[in-house]
Amino acid sequence: MSHPLTPAVATDIIIRPRSRPDQLVLVQRRNPPHGLALPGGFVDLGERVEQAAVREALEETGLKVQLQTLLGVYSDPNRDPRGHTVSVVFIADADGEPRAGDDAGGIRIVDPADTTLELVFDHASILADYRRFARTGHMPRLRL
Amino acid sequence: MSHPLTPAVATDIIIRPRSRPDQLVLVQRRNPPHGLALPGGFVDLGERVEQAAVREALEETGLKVQLQTLLGVYSDPNRDPRGHTVSVVFIADADGEPRAGDDAGGIRIVDPADTTLELVFDHASILADYRRFARTGHMPRLRL
Repeated sequence: MSHPLTPAVATDIIIRPRSRPDQLVLVQRRNPPHGLALPGGFVDLGERVEQAAVREALEETGLKVQLQTLLGVYSDPNRDPRGHTVSVVFIADADGEPRAGDDAGGIRIVDPADTTLELVFDHASILADYRRFARTGHMPRLRL
Repeated sequence: MSHPLTPAVATDIIIRPRSRPDQLVLVQRRNPPHGLALPGGFVDLGERVEQAAVREALEETGLKVQLQTLLGVYSDPNRDPRGHTVSVVFIADADGEPRAGDDAGGIRIVDPADTTLELVFDHASILADYRRFARTGHMPRLRL
């Protein structure tokens, strides 16, 4: 078949530092849209989504993460202003101290309940789902 | 941005008939690769993954499904011989009797523990994950 025209596939990672497991690692984006974001990026052809998550976490934060759980799949056509992108979101743990990588202008370690964070894309909604999952163990609601 | 080159995104649906909730609906594929498969197909640009799952289930089986749970995301680069495709797999329930749609040469209602089914793609592996989930409530293992 010719490659079918579908949304792009990306991954974003909720990284919990083992030294501060109630917090998580965000990156200040160097490229537009500017703001705070979960570490993440596009999945390469030939790469598993899980591999892309580990690679992007390392590239953006310097952390070697251990993926723990699939949180959800986010696919609103308007969630990324650059074009329709489906993001597979994982929860991961990591030892060590994060350091901003090439695509990250800086690192923030934050309380996921901090509602003053200026998050880009639909990452505020993803963090709301994460807080609910952490509290109840319930997966995010499916959105039709 | 130009549309980044990533794997294609598809969805497959494990449909449990409400009249026979221990069984599930498979389709006999009319197009190559030939064999039995979970109902499913590519996600369209501008469409949520959940919407694609409901649409594909209806097109292939005639059933109006209610999505219940995200089972997992399958992204092995070799899982689809036509090209690298990431599949988001949902578990759904449906009333009524399935009827084969345009892309389906026929319908089978099967016991998910039947190991003699000639399933295409990685659908045997997905069904193994489903049986484990149904038995234990555990999500599939992440695969690095």
